[in-house]
Amino acid sequence: MASSYSMTRVVEFSETDMAGIAHFSNFYTWMEQAEHAFFRSLDLTIANNQTDGTTIGFPRVAASCRFVSPAKFEDTVTVQLRVQRIGVKSLTYEAIFSIDDRLVANGTLKTVCCRFRSGESLDSIEIPDLYLSKLEEFSE
Amino acid sequence: MASSYSMTRVVEFSETDMAGIAHFSNFYTWMEQAEHAFFRSLDLTIANNQTDGTTIGFPRVAASCRFVSPAKFEDTVTVQLRVQRIGVKSLTYEAIFSIDDRLVANGTLKTVCCRFRSGESLDSIEIPDLYLSKLEEFSE
Amino acid sequence: MASSYSMTRVVEFSETDMAGIAHFSNFYTWMEQAEHAFFRSLDLTIANNQTDGTTIGFPRVAASCRFVSPAKFEDTVTVQLRVQRIGVKSLTYEAIFSIDDRLVANGTLKTVCCRFRSGESLDSIEIPDLYLSKLEEFSE
Amino acid sequence: MASSYSMTRVVEFSETDMAGIAHFSNFYTWMEQAEHAFFRSLDLTIANNQTDGTTIGFPRVAASCRFVSPAKFEDTVTVQLRVQRIGVKSLTYEAIFSIDDRLVANGTLKTVCCRFRSGESLDSIEIPDLYLSKLEEFSE
Repeated sequence: MASSYSMTRVVEFSETDMAGIAHFSNFYTWMEQAEHAFFRSLDLTIANNQTDGTTIGFPRVAASCRFVSPAKFEDTVTVQLRVQRIGVKSLTYEAIFSIDDRLVANGTLKTVCCRFRSGESLDSIEIPDLYLSKLEEFSE
Repeated sequence: MASSYSMTRVVEFSETDMAGIAHFSNFYTWMEQAEHAFFRSLDLTIANNQTDGTTIGFPRVAASCRFVSPAKFEDTVTVQLRVQRIGVKSLTYEAIFSIDDRLVANGTLKTVCCRFRSGESLDSIEIPDLYLSKLEEFSE
Repeated sequence: MASSYSMTRVVEFSETDMAGIAHFSNFYTWMEQAEHAFFRSLDLTIANNQTDGTTIGFPRVAASCRFVSPAKFEDTVTVQLRVQRIGVKSLTYEAIFSIDDRLVANGTLKTVCCRFRSGESLDSIEIPDLYLSKLEEFSE
Repeated sequence: MASSYSMTRVVEFSETDMAGIAHFSNFYTWMEQAEHAFFRSLDLTIANNQTDGTTIGFPRVAASCRFVSPAKFEDTVTVQLRVQRIGVKSLTYEAIFSIDDRLVANGTLKTVCCRFRSGESLDSIEIPDLYLSKLEEFSE
């Protein structure tokens, strides 16, 4: 049984569309917000500035979402994030979006660990031990 | 050989993030913008108000994207949209994002035809003939 | 001395731009989020569906913001909202954005009370007593 | 009689809100998009990377907007941008948003010329001659 990290958020007016529901693009952003809050809960940051001027980050390589039922203005959405797989260079998450006990959407997110300078090309690297140990401890 | 619809757009400053590239959530919005522009190119609209106060629309049921290379501020991104499958009630698209000849991302989008009143529940319906005939003519 | 309502929020990665700071457009959205959270704190809602199918809402007629210092990823921004003026039909707010004791931005927002049907024209109305009494009690 | 630069754009579905109109925060982003397109029309860029690793850019110091009438999905909005004042370090713009002949909104935008490294503090500088000469030639 893997552990999971949960975040809740209220659907904002600016996130609704003319169909009266949260626009689908928000679910990808919420998935990322949950990922970043999860990192903060482990005393990690997704954008880790190094002393040599590079940054260690986790750009997304893929994200998908399936939409089951609508989320409306002022609904409280729970995003439940689970680390599905810890690879050598990549992390794969599963996210479940719900309102009370109703399933709203579910998605997956794959990120890859990179070291880069702002505006330059991204080079993937092995996930540093600092991250690995905390992620593995959490997932046990 | 299926036909495809192409749209180009410049990456806006507001679409970039602190990594200096277009934020991944924009690709889902761009895919939707291409879908809506494609409908307009067929003299259709994705949000069709009926005389009885209902709207015929195409909410998304799933969307995925794979990110291959970055898009930067003021890059011109081409979104090439292809109708992959015309179902009884649903439409499935494939989108290829490129800058010049470089592949940036590729995604899929599945929508389902619905009739609804604003703020009320969505009921799926068979895609009306008006849409079907134009979509099929295009896809031939 | 007027009362004020405070909301805090973490700057999200998706809200940053290639300059490495929160994009200026977010401040207008945050001001609105504070307004809506303020309404919820008074057991009110900014989008109040009536039994006759109309909605009572508060569309913006003007908003301005002055930017003093930057907000960065994972900074906690406090939005302090004060009701500057309660008119017959309109509400004017002042917002102060800060990080710890540093001023980040300050803005104003003017809304007007309207009754409308979705997609139809907006007609301004006098602010209903239910709202007035709670807003005045808060502002005393 | 000052010259003005015009840009048109279609209101996207993702830009609408549950009131069925373009969310007010988009107007600030559209004003910025018009500013950047205006710079491109003069063969300038708003984010000018220098050979020494710094960037010359024009962060906003203030922006305001007054909303007169709604913009809806698939409306074509014209943004007419005029340089109101060229200061030593700052530029002030006026923007008029219209749909056909109907006024939708009008706003102002003040930017200040800065040289900075990504993530570091912004230092204001005098607007370089390259920019000045093109801006003045345009405004005559």
